[in-house]
Amino acid sequence: MKAATGTAPFLAALRGERPSRRPVWIMRQAGRYLPEYQELRRSATFEELCTTPELACEATLQPLRRFDLDAAILFSDILVPLAPMGAPFVIEEGGPKTPHPIRTDADVQNLRVVDPREEIPFVADAVRLLKRELGDTPLIGFAGAPFTLAAYLVEGGGSRDFLHLKRMLFRRPDLLERLLDLLADQVADHLKMQVEAGADAVQLFDTWGGILSPADHERFILPRHRRIFDALAGLGVPKILFTKGGGPFLPALATAGADALGLDWLTPIPDALKRTGALPVQGNLDPHALFAPKKELARRVAEICREGDAAPGHVFNLGHGIFPTAPIEAVETVVETVHAHVPGGVS
Amino acid sequence: MKAATGTAPFLAALRGERPSRRPVWIMRQAGRYLPEYQELRRSATFEELCTTPELACEATLQPLRRFDLDAAILFSDILVPLAPMGAPFVIEEGGPKTPHPIRTDADVQNLRVVDPREEIPFVADAVRLLKRELGDTPLIGFAGAPFTLAAYLVEGGGSRDFLHLKRMLFRRPDLLERLLDLLADQVADHLKMQVEAGADAVQLFDTWGGILSPADHERFILPRHRRIFDALAGLGVPKILFTKGGGPFLPALATAGADALGLDWLTPIPDALKRTGALPVQGNLDPHALFAPKKELARRVAEICREGDAAPGHVFNLGHGIFPTAPIEAVETVVETVHAHVPGGVS
Repeated sequence: MKAATGTAPFLAALRGERPSRRPVWIMRQAGRYLPEYQELRRSATFEELCTTPELACEATLQPLRRFDLDAAILFSDILVPLAPMGAPFVIEEGGPKTPHPIRTDADVQNLRVVDPREEIPFVADAVRLLKRELGDTPLIGFAGAPFTLAAYLVEGGGSRDFLHLKRMLFRRPDLLERLLDLLADQVADHLKMQVEAGADAVQLFDTWGGILSPADHERFILPRHRRIFDALAGLGVPKILFTKGGGPFLPALATAGADALGLDWLTPIPDALKRTGALPVQGNLDPHALFAPKKELARRVAEICREGDAAPGHVFNLGHGIFPTAPIEAVETVVETVHAHVPGGVS
Repeated sequence: MKAATGTAPFLAALRGERPSRRPVWIMRQAGRYLPEYQELRRSATFEELCTTPELACEATLQPLRRFDLDAAILFSDILVPLAPMGAPFVIEEGGPKTPHPIRTDADVQNLRVVDPREEIPFVADAVRLLKRELGDTPLIGFAGAPFTLAAYLVEGGGSRDFLHLKRMLFRRPDLLERLLDLLADQVADHLKMQVEAGADAVQLFDTWGGILSPADHERFILPRHRRIFDALAGLGVPKILFTKGGGPFLPALATAGADALGLDWLTPIPDALKRTGALPVQGNLDPHALFAPKKELARRVAEICREGDAAPGHVFNLGHGIFPTAPIEAVETVVETVHAHVPGGVS
């Protein structure tokens, strides 16, 4: 067993250093675009992959066998911590669903913050297994941000309009805040458990943080980010905050206590740097660009690497999760082009 | 028959003047949240409302009978101009669908730019009817922007991921540009026809313009906006450009040739003014705020009016279309609060 060393390019970039090569990983790199993942799914359900350490470990490692990636990310799901809280989700065709959406005082009252080490030990077990396998490749732990989890809980699943969630925000802001505080505590402990088990970095995913006005984002979302990152402050691992549609809030997000900001493809890196100052950034290729011809894809990847040269640290990634239909060869092109990048080199 | 006069607050604000009262209208103000609209729909399909001037006229007038709105907007649909081009849509449960998505060279080849005066005269007829009814209330004509129309055409309906559209963008940018140029010509003529028939202002809706990176937005979308606004330049009516998710592109959008920019709720008016300079703005209440208690709703409306005081001109609106479930009384609160606003007054 080797521990991930402090010289890993991924961790160095998140510390604001200039590693030997530009690190790259891909959001949802363990997943449906990989034939070997589809094969794995023929023998086990999505839930079984999440809750069985050996299977989660296998799914996590698959993309690393195929591509020269600079980090692994634990195979899991942002909804995993919700079941022991009292809100189990079922994964159906068309997305996760819960039979009991959280909408009333009593619903929120019935949720409890639990010790994930006791209730969902399989998550930490998977991390420990992975650390034995990964050698000096860093492992990223992760969680969904409280607002994104609240969106699933209040809507009872995915949503287009977020009518229930935003109705709660406008009619019962106190109730939504109570729910978000509970979730923040649970998320903080969920990430802490992963770090204790060996995760070398964590990422907080706020998939739906972009649907609020900046003032509402500041009131409802930002304090919970801070609460989570504060709880992790002493652990010594870098913390990445990724908000899809976070462009309008970047200056605020930069104050949340994260060590790096993940960017979607709507915010060019130079803009982000202008508005956030000294934080390393991660991103930000349009995930659809993986359908481009190789030459055009490589051109866009190289351009983002050049933009990243101006950042205190830059981890290459997509601006959102990879599509299940993305071609394997495109991922190869991305990884090769990122690693071929020479800072300050001629394009 | 009275013509809408140049002193209408709505038109004055769009010219950058300070009208006697802050004008307000509401995107999708003629629609399902109104019981009288639902009544109308029991006797006619959505298509019949769009294609029968008397019915379109009735639907357009309904919200003005109920609320003291400062403008009417023609009841129609952004997909109406597509049928005579060779791409008819059917409105089904779950949104519009076309049996023949536009994805190949031959598909684009088969589309033709037509004279809307001959092919869809019912649109101009509805405008003419309305002008007789409206007196000095201005009438807004509108169209979907080429990229938004292309999204429907290429996807074959609504979409969450826009896989086909963005695949075309990345694989066949030339083909997408050809399609966008055709649509720009058709849209320009569609708006021109409405102005010739009497529309006092026009709004271009780019519902999906926010899904592209700024560089792609500049390449694929902006030139078509310019083409359309150039074609309308001599007609003497104000032109509003509304891009949902347009925050990242505001400085670019401000150069498109529109007289005013519509803002969604993610871009605060002060930010927009800082980044776009001297253009009047329209917006930008979160449409979900209509579910807030009256006092909170009024507080938010008043705040936006105060922010609008700093603009060269401000038309109050929502940041997106009103929800079918929005309460009628909330619309009353919005309109009353906007009209009670005294520029520079105490909050």
